[in-house]
Amino acid sequence: MTIQSQTNKQKSNNAVVLLSGGLDSVTCLYWAKANFDKVTAVSFDYGQRHNSELKSAQNIAKIANVNHRVIGIDLEQLGGSALTDQNIHVPNADKTTDFSHNQNNDSIPVTYVPARNTIFLSYALAVAEVTHANTIVIGVNAVDYSGYPDCRPEYIDAFAKMANLATKAGVTGSHLTIATPLLHLSKADIIKLGVSLGVDYSLTVSCYQADSDGRACGKCDSCYLRQQGFLQAEIDDPTRYQ
Amino acid sequence: MTIQSQTNKQKSNNAVVLLSGGLDSVTCLYWAKANFDKVTAVSFDYGQRHNSELKSAQNIAKIANVNHRVIGIDLEQLGGSALTDQNIHVPNADKTTDFSHNQNNDSIPVTYVPARNTIFLSYALAVAEVTHANTIVIGVNAVDYSGYPDCRPEYIDAFAKMANLATKAGVTGSHLTIATPLLHLSKADIIKLGVSLGVDYSLTVSCYQADSDGRACGKCDSCYLRQQGFLQAEIDDPTRYQ
Repeated sequence: MTIQSQTNKQKSNNAVVLLSGGLDSVTCLYWAKANFDKVTAVSFDYGQRHNSELKSAQNIAKIANVNHRVIGIDLEQLGGSALTDQNIHVPNADKTTDFSHNQNNDSIPVTYVPARNTIFLSYALAVAEVTHANTIVIGVNAVDYSGYPDCRPEYIDAFAKMANLATKAGVTGSHLTIATPLLHLSKADIIKLGVSLGVDYSLTVSCYQADSDGRACGKCDSCYLRQQGFLQAEIDDPTRYQ
Repeated sequence: MTIQSQTNKQKSNNAVVLLSGGLDSVTCLYWAKANFDKVTAVSFDYGQRHNSELKSAQNIAKIANVNHRVIGIDLEQLGGSALTDQNIHVPNADKTTDFSHNQNNDSIPVTYVPARNTIFLSYALAVAEVTHANTIVIGVNAVDYSGYPDCRPEYIDAFAKMANLATKAGVTGSHLTIATPLLHLSKADIIKLGVSLGVDYSLTVSCYQADSDGRACGKCDSCYLRQQGFLQAEIDDPTRYQ
């Protein structure tokens, strides 16, 4: 099994963390800092609407004092998602459903970016190889799974298998692990974990349509999940709203 | 099994072809044109030394009259390869060995780009999703395998499994195939196939250090393999040398 979601100590290793600047990935960053000797954060500038999320990532990487690589990729030209295509409307959260916005007669929300996690993990794999990291940390979650196919545990497992065949590691015998510390945690549990690790959630941006100062809309799926998380964790919500 | 290397007709489909502009990928493009109703070629501008290869791809896509997307990605910042890092020397072909240049005490040549095929296939996956293609065509080859881990058949199979979990296709039930029409062909057989499909190999650039006009060095691994291919196919080598 190449996936691990344990939170036990394993100091002596070297990890690459996918850092969007949102609640989940920032929690992953602090989890990685607590569990690895060396941590490199990787963020992407892909023409996302919520560019304040990227500013949040840069700010947090600096505060957390980790090496940070921002990789510019032109996902916008691929179109097909409300997160990059200005012509597709970001829906408000449908609080009566399981967040599966059925606008295309299937269960994929329109906020899905084609092959996004695959592209992001592939770059993380390249960074892992050049930094000699043995672990990639990603904040996917099976509890709050919103219909994104590339957040499913079986997808992560398949990526890990592929990654171990793709690289020098796969030939020389060392093993790469995809760590998913949030996989089985509720949003409330993620927030509790982050607070215990020293995360300042007022600095994180989760909103799909945050303004340029990082203030959240309070209406989209991502905002709704986050609000519910703080409520259930019984922790004051420090999010800055528009 | 998600890999196919057959060359039988299957007109009625829609394919994305990874097109570098080299001998193998151009043969794949013409194979795809002969076997699919719709073909989209995808190339990458990743700061490669041999930029004339990209010019060749653009020229050939135009001649072949297929839709062509050139995706700019900054692989150069990842370093670690003679193909992008100006500080690493491209070795001449060692004609007494199996092309496994043992400069790092393992069997990986220094011309290896970290996670390159994984990044390229991930973008192809995104293009496949937005163009509704059911097949990605890549010119990997198990015969002339030069020590690149991400050219191995088991790697391609693992990528296909992951890809089918990553995307809408994986949820909605339609199946994505990674086609590898060159997998079991010798370089000579690839050239014979391409010539039968109408490829003009004088337009293709395979050399790792071609000049700005696309003329080959005649000395690197890639040039040597190509020369041997034409020799064994008993076809005049149309390659333009420096």
